[in-house]
Amino acid sequence: MSVNGSPELLIVMTPGATAEHVSAIVHRLAEAGVRARVSRGREATVIGATGDGELLAALPLDGFPGVDQVVPIVKPYKLVSRELSSGPTVIEARGRRIGGGSFGLIAGPCAVEDREQLLETARAVAAAGATMLRAGAFKPRTSPYAFQGLGAEGLELLEEARAETGLPIVTELVDPRQVELVLATADVIQIGARNMQNFGLLAEVGRADKPVLLKRAPSASIEELLMAAEYVMKEGNAELILCERGIRTFERATRYTLDIGAVPVLKAETHLPVIVDPSHPAGRREYVPALARAAVAAGADGVIVEVHRAPEEALSDASQQLAPAEFAELAGELHELAARMGTGVAAAPASPPG
Amino acid sequence: MSVNGSPELLIVMTPGATAEHVSAIVHRLAEAGVRARVSRGREATVIGATGDGELLAALPLDGFPGVDQVVPIVKPYKLVSRELSSGPTVIEARGRRIGGGSFGLIAGPCAVEDREQLLETARAVAAAGATMLRAGAFKPRTSPYAFQGLGAEGLELLEEARAETGLPIVTELVDPRQVELVLATADVIQIGARNMQNFGLLAEVGRADKPVLLKRAPSASIEELLMAAEYVMKEGNAELILCERGIRTFERATRYTLDIGAVPVLKAETHLPVIVDPSHPAGRREYVPALARAAVAAGADGVIVEVHRAPEEALSDASQQLAPAEFAELAGELHELAARMGTGVAAAPASPPG
Amino acid sequence: MSVNGSPELLIVMTPGATAEHVSAIVHRLAEAGVRARVSRGREATVIGATGDGELLAALPLDGFPGVDQVVPIVKPYKLVSRELSSGPTVIEARGRRIGGGSFGLIAGPCAVEDREQLLETARAVAAAGATMLRAGAFKPRTSPYAFQGLGAEGLELLEEARAETGLPIVTELVDPRQVELVLATADVIQIGARNMQNFGLLAEVGRADKPVLLKRAPSASIEELLMAAEYVMKEGNAELILCERGIRTFERATRYTLDIGAVPVLKAETHLPVIVDPSHPAGRREYVPALARAAVAAGADGVIVEVHRAPEEALSDASQQLAPAEFAELAGELHELAARMGTGVAAAPASPPG
Amino acid sequence: MSVNGSPELLIVMTPGATAEHVSAIVHRLAEAGVRARVSRGREATVIGATGDGELLAALPLDGFPGVDQVVPIVKPYKLVSRELSSGPTVIEARGRRIGGGSFGLIAGPCAVEDREQLLETARAVAAAGATMLRAGAFKPRTSPYAFQGLGAEGLELLEEARAETGLPIVTELVDPRQVELVLATADVIQIGARNMQNFGLLAEVGRADKPVLLKRAPSASIEELLMAAEYVMKEGNAELILCERGIRTFERATRYTLDIGAVPVLKAETHLPVIVDPSHPAGRREYVPALARAAVAAGADGVIVEVHRAPEEALSDASQQLAPAEFAELAGELHELAARMGTGVAAAPASPPG
Repeated sequence: MSVNGSPELLIVMTPGATAEHVSAIVHRLAEAGVRARVSRGREATVIGATGDGELLAALPLDGFPGVDQVVPIVKPYKLVSRELSSGPTVIEARGRRIGGGSFGLIAGPCAVEDREQLLETARAVAAAGATMLRAGAFKPRTSPYAFQGLGAEGLELLEEARAETGLPIVTELVDPRQVELVLATADVIQIGARNMQNFGLLAEVGRADKPVLLKRAPSASIEELLMAAEYVMKEGNAELILCERGIRTFERATRYTLDIGAVPVLKAETHLPVIVDPSHPAGRREYVPALARAAVAAGADGVIVEVHRAPEEALSDASQQLAPAEFAELAGELHELAARMGTGVAAAPASPPG
Repeated sequence: MSVNGSPELLIVMTPGATAEHVSAIVHRLAEAGVRARVSRGREATVIGATGDGELLAALPLDGFPGVDQVVPIVKPYKLVSRELSSGPTVIEARGRRIGGGSFGLIAGPCAVEDREQLLETARAVAAAGATMLRAGAFKPRTSPYAFQGLGAEGLELLEEARAETGLPIVTELVDPRQVELVLATADVIQIGARNMQNFGLLAEVGRADKPVLLKRAPSASIEELLMAAEYVMKEGNAELILCERGIRTFERATRYTLDIGAVPVLKAETHLPVIVDPSHPAGRREYVPALARAAVAAGADGVIVEVHRAPEEALSDASQQLAPAEFAELAGELHELAARMGTGVAAAPASPPG
Repeated sequence: MSVNGSPELLIVMTPGATAEHVSAIVHRLAEAGVRARVSRGREATVIGATGDGELLAALPLDGFPGVDQVVPIVKPYKLVSRELSSGPTVIEARGRRIGGGSFGLIAGPCAVEDREQLLETARAVAAAGATMLRAGAFKPRTSPYAFQGLGAEGLELLEEARAETGLPIVTELVDPRQVELVLATADVIQIGARNMQNFGLLAEVGRADKPVLLKRAPSASIEELLMAAEYVMKEGNAELILCERGIRTFERATRYTLDIGAVPVLKAETHLPVIVDPSHPAGRREYVPALARAAVAAGADGVIVEVHRAPEEALSDASQQLAPAEFAELAGELHELAARMGTGVAAAPASPPG
Repeated sequence: MSVNGSPELLIVMTPGATAEHVSAIVHRLAEAGVRARVSRGREATVIGATGDGELLAALPLDGFPGVDQVVPIVKPYKLVSRELSSGPTVIEARGRRIGGGSFGLIAGPCAVEDREQLLETARAVAAAGATMLRAGAFKPRTSPYAFQGLGAEGLELLEEARAETGLPIVTELVDPRQVELVLATADVIQIGARNMQNFGLLAEVGRADKPVLLKRAPSASIEELLMAAEYVMKEGNAELILCERGIRTFERATRYTLDIGAVPVLKAETHLPVIVDPSHPAGRREYVPALARAAVAAGADGVIVEVHRAPEEALSDASQQLAPAEFAELAGELHELAARMGTGVAAAPASPPG
């Protein structure tokens, strides 16, 4: 309830709305226990509604005749909101942190393909300064005829790679029936772009006790990404990393359009750490370093980069994975840039590997 | 294997590609059992690859150095392709058909809200000429604070509505763990736009013996919709209806941009019936009739329209649901237009209700 | 000035806005002679501004510190607005009408290429039931190496085609320095999609005494199209036809995405006639008829279609121009559909040709 | 195949194309003096065309029946292409350089509003390290009721600002009839986003002897930007700066989506300097610094930033203009970052001011 009656929702009526249209809305608001104040004027009537925000959000007022627009004054998300937190959320997995001045450099192959491929790549990214290892055991692919990942066997290989390098494992969960299986291995559970609005999956990881890396869907607005994060936090899991990975636009020179503006917007809106995947928007490895540097310069708390022992042999995303030497050069640049930005002051490992 | 060696894939090299770059690709193709023919020239070298299409699609050739573009000559989908079928696929559920000259008019509320709401609406759409009843028991919603559907109770109410009206039930499946539950009630299983690339779910309904209504995701290309359909057909289920429901663009005067061009494109590419949802792109009920008529005029085999006993009381999508009287007027227009288009010659019920 | 003080602009402050932020805005509004009413509340403060609409639109209030959003209650366009007109605007050129129940079927080649090509095509479209002839003498082309039109010579050929067929001429103006030249020939001046926001050009045709056909730019919102029309009407020319011709989206199966929803939106917002160009969004001739029929079924007052004596020989847009026989079949369907829609009751010529 | 016999265009036929379809194309190519090689196969026939590239680009082969796709092997632009230049183009105006290791920091108000506003802002940006002064005398505005600029009077004020600060003037040309007027003042002629495909204007500045700053239209592809640059260079003016300023997408949290990936793509494709406007995509001043830093980190040769003596009083773009103190802080960061990137080694003034 508002102290002195400021509206939380404005209902703007069309010029042709009748007195009956207006009273139907006022009546409905009253039914729902919401106070209304009506301003009638020459051009349009505006109704200000004041009451419980959650209740107001659920009221489908734009379905009433005579309504031109419904303007929410209060943001639809709460738990993820910067206002609700005393400071930035810091995610920690096996001693490696992301957020609040710790820069996360997550690297590894698109998919686990075999033991040699994974271990060689894991060693290379660890040596180059990666703070976490990424690789998919379950791969959602556009074509049913493409390589779909090694599944459980891939998870075992990831455990071996972690044992050897000490790097925490970031790996994707694609099906709610595999939650236990993936949680047994993953240090950070990735929810991929295609599943950002798979609400059953979000609820599952919302009940897990592992951090979640939530990727933005290529057609999701920033607000929808925050609402998806709200689904996870509402179930109790406050350990979330948000990841911008490119949106779908008309431009085809790159695979997706990296929405670099999402970084400052998200940093302003939420207390959660924000990272960027430069590999998927680039689509070609020669553009990855520029996008990764841009992400850090824009204020990202980390990047997640695809690296493959031998990119031209990769079974997926071959054109966008970096070779180990390319990654090593980039990693140095990124850590240095993060240190200057203030997002990387504590980037050094918080605990010894192994 | 090609009779006289026409390439199925063209690999266009960059102007700066070296002889080593070219031989690396030829070598890789040879390893994979694919024949290559190299055309070296002044501006660029082009490699034509001939072999097993599935195998070629899986080869990540664009990851090789020196590659400018990889041009597939053969479409990436097969089972859904018009070339593979002797005629249009006709979907039938409880005697009501869609496709091949039968016009499907699927109508009903966005969500099952309560017994009265569902039964009244069902009676109204049946009386107006709907051929199937739609309503969601499980509702994926952007906000975790919004109404999420009645679940199993909603399915029971749908059975009651079917018993009374005789209309087959179209309802959404959102989680692979609910396949059995939803299949027990649904006559046609809807895969919603947010789940178009939920490949686990697609595989499940691919093994079901009920028709599937697959909605295009708002950021999916037409090709990706066809690939998602291919996932279902690959598992054995050939009973598929494709549904265009608006894509996400910069325009905000409507909720989504109805891609009306998808109708003739899909009709040309696939043998599957194509329907249109005019309600979600419209976003406001006053635009729904224009979009529905446009869909039929463009050649759609059916439309799926949101109708609610009392739209202004709806718990979701209130602004876009039609009132029964609005729907009745529209239904008449659509059946008449479909008859003239040749998509509705057999639109009359094939079996008595009840 | 509002009778009882309804705001015409709402300024919603951020939660962190201070009293100083609020008074700075109130002060600025007062300076501009605009009354302000402040509602302070728990979540946010909202300022309602009431005064001269034009003046309010020019006030850049979102530049002030503490402002979250500025919500206009009154639409930014006036002269084009449906509210300002007693009925639909009807455009007439040489006895042929568009709007208010008269269906306009504008057809002809993309560009004037030579005498034979133009005259043959003009005769064919006239015989098939076209009500106006379209063809470009000046062609804006993406590539500087492509055919740019015949220029003044093309205009002369258009006059010859008009003399023979009696069809009024619709042709494009691309440069303000050619206004007199083009006006001497054109019956309807086309402003192409690329020039929708060429404000110097809009002002020129706003002072002309010929009707203007204004095409929507592929990235322009519907509101921006209406604002461009407002530029023309503000200069005095009230003879305007609006044309939807496809917007740029991520989908590439068609050349542009026809925004079919723009038809009902524009019909609701403006009194001006609304037509559709199905050729440019289709990009391929086999999709043109479906889009044209959809346009008429959605309520368009006309269509403008590219037709070429021999499309495969066309110097531009070859893939999307219809052959005369294809157009003849389509024209019959469209006239019939328009008659049924009520947009074509007066489609017959109002005066004899020649 | 011969030294200069590689195809420059591939014509891929549909599976259903007949022998007649193929020979019609071969015949047309022969007529045009282009050699064709036909590969017939199981799935599709492919025709490779070899000849004069300009001629091939003009041939509308996709209009022929049976054609599935036309794949250009050679890029449609030439003069702007990196391959045609021995090194990066460096633009110089009054001793200030952009490109080839010189970082351009262009700053100033959106529009010239009055003498005090311009001079105060000019002094502030000069003191902070700007290398050029930007400000519009002619303002293209979406609304005909908005401030349209001071016109010729604005140009005079710009000359005064230059005399005092020594900064070269970057100002926009919007109408070909004002070429002489604007050229008399401008050191760099800006072609705004709305005029990127105003080909008459491009031809005019292509004949001018001043550098041109060409902004990408919000719906133009990178390739179309390069084609627009080709229009300018084709007329003889090789002094071009390309500017990415955000594209139009579905996301509304920022005004436009800055296509940061355009920076590495353009740097790879062309020898021309590439700069970024962070102000228009940001839309709000608090996001400008992040986007500006991202641009420099991505490899841009400069940025163009809106700065206003008192942003909250600005007559246009008020919400996105930086205050002088904000700009001063940003300018230092950008020069330092550019120096580290190697794009700013020669950023210091090449000549004394005034």
